[in-house]
Amino acid sequence: MFHSQTQIRVRYAETDQMGYVYYGNYAQYYEVARVEALRQVGLTYKMFEESGLMMPVLYLSCKYFKPARYDDLLTIKTMIKEKPNVRVHFFYEVYNEQGILLGTGETTLVFIDMKTNRPVKCPQILADKLASSFVE
Amino acid sequence: MFHSQTQIRVRYAETDQMGYVYYGNYAQYYEVARVEALRQVGLTYKMFEESGLMMPVLYLSCKYFKPARYDDLLTIKTMIKEKPNVRVHFFYEVYNEQGILLGTGETTLVFIDMKTNRPVKCPQILADKLASSFVE
Amino acid sequence: MFHSQTQIRVRYAETDQMGYVYYGNYAQYYEVARVEALRQVGLTYKMFEESGLMMPVLYLSCKYFKPARYDDLLTIKTMIKEKPNVRVHFFYEVYNEQGILLGTGETTLVFIDMKTNRPVKCPQILADKLASSFVE
Amino acid sequence: MFHSQTQIRVRYAETDQMGYVYYGNYAQYYEVARVEALRQVGLTYKMFEESGLMMPVLYLSCKYFKPARYDDLLTIKTMIKEKPNVRVHFFYEVYNEQGILLGTGETTLVFIDMKTNRPVKCPQILADKLASSFVE
Repeated sequence: MFHSQTQIRVRYAETDQMGYVYYGNYAQYYEVARVEALRQVGLTYKMFEESGLMMPVLYLSCKYFKPARYDDLLTIKTMIKEKPNVRVHFFYEVYNEQGILLGTGETTLVFIDMKTNRPVKCPQILADKLASSFVE
Repeated sequence: MFHSQTQIRVRYAETDQMGYVYYGNYAQYYEVARVEALRQVGLTYKMFEESGLMMPVLYLSCKYFKPARYDDLLTIKTMIKEKPNVRVHFFYEVYNEQGILLGTGETTLVFIDMKTNRPVKCPQILADKLASSFVE
Repeated sequence: MFHSQTQIRVRYAETDQMGYVYYGNYAQYYEVARVEALRQVGLTYKMFEESGLMMPVLYLSCKYFKPARYDDLLTIKTMIKEKPNVRVHFFYEVYNEQGILLGTGETTLVFIDMKTNRPVKCPQILADKLASSFVE
Repeated sequence: MFHSQTQIRVRYAETDQMGYVYYGNYAQYYEVARVEALRQVGLTYKMFEESGLMMPVLYLSCKYFKPARYDDLLTIKTMIKEKPNVRVHFFYEVYNEQGILLGTGETTLVFIDMKTNRPVKCPQILADKLASSFVE
């Protein structure tokens, strides 16, 4: 299993009048978390797009256990549990500063060749970076 | 089954550099859709909050089949398939102007008494409005 | 002077924990307002982009007199006070359902040829639509 | 003059289909910048709200010189040029990694006593922290 951690400070803009982080904003947190996970292995999603590969999201799910609040310094734990093929599945756990699990999430992304607009296999450079995380 | 329909015009702000609606923005569309569904039976979520009831989201899922694009006039179909109890489940379908299904979603919300911060049963006024939608 | 009116319902997502519309969200309301102003004269910003013209924003200002709140049905009045040339200036007034002026804003946009990435004059089709609004 | 610096990584969510940061998102960047400026002198806006003081925004302006783009690591320079009284004026400069000035902004915020909902003077603790920045 590949795993990684990122911290995100909750912005005032991201709260709603309930005093909680708006439920739709976790999708942004997950985006930041998976992009930073890639950066931690020396890759950037920006490079992928520049090389003609994009990764649109096919599926998102979020479970909300406890609210995140303004100015919380959240820790997002990002996991890839299986070797990516044409799709890659990310799992997320969101913790506050007290280490309380606030929620979990999942996203499925697909590798798309921007020229053909067709799905392609996980790029070799990413497969290589992740290889040591998956015991055969 | 209770069902309802709302239209939403995609804002430029809601697109991303892929030229698609950003995947996290569907949560806002679903919010608008369920609030307008309530309004269509004569209720507003605002009234619920003013009467001391809030409805935080416990669960969200989205499946993305095809991208929504800038200026698309989307039709969101909102469904409640079972009688709400302490929780209410909404199902959503998002269509573009050509009638193509772009994605589907689900949310689970819980009724919370703002004084006690405890779950409570679906308010009678909402149960009554929905009653005719559910054949016993 | 050219003027136009649009209505926007405040989303829960757009509020913050103060219980007000977050100050940065007015930029989106102004975007909707000017796009709908164009639509009311038979044009769409989408058509402009498809024909190779884009209109990035050079300047934004907002004055906030009173807060907009969740579920408010806002009326945005959009005005163009002078004939556009390479730039076009929009003025906005935001009213709530009681007709109270909540704030005012301004944006300056520039017409850019997407091929050359250089400023160009206001497209003739827009100039023509607006012509009757400006007495020589 | 008081000044401070913060870094913000542009999220994919914050871009639009022009491939630029959406013009309305700078308001969020300015929020982060001024909150981090306070944190750098040992204060948090969260503490202010918990002590019954809120700081709504009265005025915002933004000038956009060059676009910020996806994954840019922006540096926001925040300045307070005059001693705050009932209001506080923040000035912002946004730079990319090449040190190019992408835009400037200003916000005016007012100190409001949440009990009376009336403007009050800048809290002494903040005045003291800033005092050394303003030569009499």
